[in-house]
Amino acid sequence: MANEVLIEVSARHIHLSCDVLQKLFGEGYELEKLKDLSQPGQFAAKEIVKIEVKDDKGMLKSFDSIRVTGPCREYAQVEISRTDAFFLGLGYDVPLRLSGNIEGSPGFRVIGPAGEAVLNEGLIVAKRHLHTSPKDAEILGIDSGDKISVEIGGERGLVFNNVEVRVNEDFKLAVHIDTDEGNAAGIVNEGVGIILEK
Amino acid sequence: MANEVLIEVSARHIHLSCDVLQKLFGEGYELEKLKDLSQPGQFAAKEIVKIEVKDDKGMLKSFDSIRVTGPCREYAQVEISRTDAFFLGLGYDVPLRLSGNIEGSPGFRVIGPAGEAVLNEGLIVAKRHLHTSPKDAEILGIDSGDKISVEIGGERGLVFNNVEVRVNEDFKLAVHIDTDEGNAAGIVNEGVGIILEK
Repeated sequence: MANEVLIEVSARHIHLSCDVLQKLFGEGYELEKLKDLSQPGQFAAKEIVKIEVKDDKGMLKSFDSIRVTGPCREYAQVEISRTDAFFLGLGYDVPLRLSGNIEGSPGFRVIGPAGEAVLNEGLIVAKRHLHTSPKDAEILGIDSGDKISVEIGGERGLVFNNVEVRVNEDFKLAVHIDTDEGNAAGIVNEGVGIILEK
Repeated sequence: MANEVLIEVSARHIHLSCDVLQKLFGEGYELEKLKDLSQPGQFAAKEIVKIEVKDDKGMLKSFDSIRVTGPCREYAQVEISRTDAFFLGLGYDVPLRLSGNIEGSPGFRVIGPAGEAVLNEGLIVAKRHLHTSPKDAEILGIDSGDKISVEIGGERGLVFNNVEVRVNEDFKLAVHIDTDEGNAAGIVNEGVGIILEK
């Protein structure tokens, strides 16, 4: 087993619930697609929002323009890098989590052109992971929840251990890492890696 | 050969020539030590400066407070992360280099309380490297210029390949990485790694 895999770098972005979307952009508002993302159905939206948090000294810190990723989900969630977490004054208070696992994570205020919302949780650093269909998982001999290692070449070459496997009928084979990991590996936007044998 | 090694994360910082130091802080000025760094003789100074660059659209971008590292060197040099390079609008125009190898790198304006200076080059992303004395290098069976691999454990565990070996009588054994690499590996300030067998 030594297979090439697409590596995609996720910049900071936000997922919104339909409820929060309407608070920020107005009743009945629908996201407009900017471009499709690799995972079927997922897209970068044209909409951007501001998020605001209080750091550990009570000072307001913010990102003024965070790209919304569509479609709506059941929860609002902001995925940032550890560098971003330090910029916000929160550092390691922002947990490393798989998308959707936001329990106990810091909250934030999100501000759109038509209104704002306060979320009690949802700020995470995304744990690196592999998206795969059940078919590709079978070919690769891996299961949901497995931790695999993926090697990146080049002058900043490295091996990411603990890449968590996520299996879903709708997933297309790709490793997702954040911008810190992309920069550490010398990858912008996307690159190619090798899934290493266990 | 499977040896523990200190990993140190270098935040963005600037080295100044004595000439530039005096332009920024006044004639005869000497840096004041804030704290010693692990490499003998090197220290974080109390002084901070501002640096300014023009991005690829001619817009001014800056970091308002960059820590000076002493003592003075023969050249001025700013070491930033790739994240920082994108923040400055320069991205991959900032080369990945070992400290001191600044030829052809972007220039910058540096501003202190008493004056400023324009440098024609000196902005780099520091290539990850191992500092070692000749004695430790002999024990490890490595030479100057070798590329070694260093494993980091933990939930963001990884293996850094292409860690360049630098040998000097004054060096103390330590791997230096930048903040992107530290964040990607889940290390703040410092941690421990294992030098892997070739």
